[in-house]
Amino acid sequence: MAEHNPSAIHFTALPVTSADVEAAAVRLAGIARCTPVVTSRTVNERTNAQVFLKCENFQRTGSFKFRGAYNALAQLSEEQASRGVLTYSSGNHAQAIALSGQLLGIHTTIIMPDDAPVVKQAATRGYGAEVILYNRQETTREALAQSLVDRRGLTLIPPYDHPHVIAGQGTSALELFQEVGSLNLLLVCCGGGGLLSGCALAAKTLSPNCRVIGVEPERADDATRSFHSKTLHTTNNPDTIADGARTPCLGNITFPLVLHYVDDMVTVSEEAIRTTMFFLWERLKIVVEPTGALAAAALLSGVVKEPGARIGVIISGGNVDIRQICKL
Amino acid sequence: MAEHNPSAIHFTALPVTSADVEAAAVRLAGIARCTPVVTSRTVNERTNAQVFLKCENFQRTGSFKFRGAYNALAQLSEEQASRGVLTYSSGNHAQAIALSGQLLGIHTTIIMPDDAPVVKQAATRGYGAEVILYNRQETTREALAQSLVDRRGLTLIPPYDHPHVIAGQGTSALELFQEVGSLNLLLVCCGGGGLLSGCALAAKTLSPNCRVIGVEPERADDATRSFHSKTLHTTNNPDTIADGARTPCLGNITFPLVLHYVDDMVTVSEEAIRTTMFFLWERLKIVVEPTGALAAAALLSGVVKEPGARIGVIISGGNVDIRQICKL
Repeated sequence: MAEHNPSAIHFTALPVTSADVEAAAVRLAGIARCTPVVTSRTVNERTNAQVFLKCENFQRTGSFKFRGAYNALAQLSEEQASRGVLTYSSGNHAQAIALSGQLLGIHTTIIMPDDAPVVKQAATRGYGAEVILYNRQETTREALAQSLVDRRGLTLIPPYDHPHVIAGQGTSALELFQEVGSLNLLLVCCGGGGLLSGCALAAKTLSPNCRVIGVEPERADDATRSFHSKTLHTTNNPDTIADGARTPCLGNITFPLVLHYVDDMVTVSEEAIRTTMFFLWERLKIVVEPTGALAAAALLSGVVKEPGARIGVIISGGNVDIRQICKL
Repeated sequence: MAEHNPSAIHFTALPVTSADVEAAAVRLAGIARCTPVVTSRTVNERTNAQVFLKCENFQRTGSFKFRGAYNALAQLSEEQASRGVLTYSSGNHAQAIALSGQLLGIHTTIIMPDDAPVVKQAATRGYGAEVILYNRQETTREALAQSLVDRRGLTLIPPYDHPHVIAGQGTSALELFQEVGSLNLLLVCCGGGGLLSGCALAAKTLSPNCRVIGVEPERADDATRSFHSKTLHTTNNPDTIADGARTPCLGNITFPLVLHYVDDMVTVSEEAIRTTMFFLWERLKIVVEPTGALAAAALLSGVVKEPGARIGVIISGGNVDIRQICKL
């Protein structure tokens, strides 16, 4: 039948489905935290809308990344699991893979640049991961990863461009809709597009009329340009405080998903990110990292306006150190 | 019957009862926020106990003070309400009174020293209160308050030494016990003793075997000395970052309640307060002010140890500005 309906062909050909998100939710039940949905009179008054903040900063390891990492590691074959897992990340994905490995009894190896903050190296080792440092001048993380995959037979779990990672991230939106019901609009930050595509997929299934908007920093607007031009654009080490959005481009898997499920992409200024982060801290008393504030910044800075709407906002993470905050 | 039972006489003679706390909870239902109880694997592992953090930093106006203020204002006679309310505070009680007045349609006047942070003056005015500034060198807040009471017929609602305020604060512990059941230990910070005595009263009613320990800064240990000596001690403008605990002494009402219902008092160092505040921020992603971290500091610094116990901790507030944090 499908060949008579190009749209359906495209739909079923996509490598992640709403059933995958639902299966991920079952896998994560009792292991990932069902994070709280925070509401605020102040936010509602400022936006003239009813806003629901899904707080992944309270997720285990401090960000949504745990959902995707655990969902991926939990689906490895026994043989893959016994050989171990590899990833490259100096950020939230590293800790998420490390904790997932610890919980599942899978050895994890994390490749980090040798200038990664010592505190992040320590946190990752604290979850039992093996950390391998490399010099950015001497090699690339991809080359080092490939040699480890070849030599040790490790399975590479990349930070976003993996169906199981994407399905796991989608459980954040799934929980939000299960808790608050249908929405008019869902705002999600975008780095490599794992969270955005997973959440958009969940939204279109659970609240079909909900528009989904991805949010990037102005200074790292590759996905926004890619979305509008339908051609993959890249950015090179952009200068934004939202470190989770410094990824060079959408992935082979996330790009088609974003094109298919996301309704629009917008960007926010560095000042809006900063102001929103401090607003969330001072008024809502929650610690949010710059990337975690992106989606809320689109709303609070007025880039997105939808008076009277029921609006979901994913607060993606809260891993920020005090020294960094004080510099801002 | 009572005269044959001195203990019962003492009990009934106290000006706040568990029925008052229950009545306050009814008054506050749907108006105060039923604040979340946060748990953390990291905290449980570090303390070898099961710890429940009752997060009053998420309360309206950012601290538990809203409970007592609203409970007091809601019980004014029509005549008192029409004349208005007065208090002196540059801190959380000021905003709590201001918002309570706004919600109940009662004019509120707040006396603050003229060197109170502009941001606090603005926040208090933002809730519709009239702020009257005074010069510490020229007059005392008590003298100015008395003249306003005399001239304008205002009703003074002090920050802690008032039965309705104390009963309101006790609803924090009431909610905690209703949510998590009985506990072995409850830790509560102590400034003027309003929160501590209200919570201790609730604890002894709802979880009779629960020990209650009050926590003060080492540098502002008047209540601890008063408790142990059974004589009221005072402290004069102590140099502690826990500004909510800089009150000179327990009150005429709170002191007997503390003596009757509290099992022990302990103190924590400035370093323990600071470390705990940053720990709660970085690991639990919640913004807590120094005073708000006192009770948790007693546990996390090892001043109080109770392995295997179920322990409640009141996180009293989260009103701290970024600049202050950065200085620490």
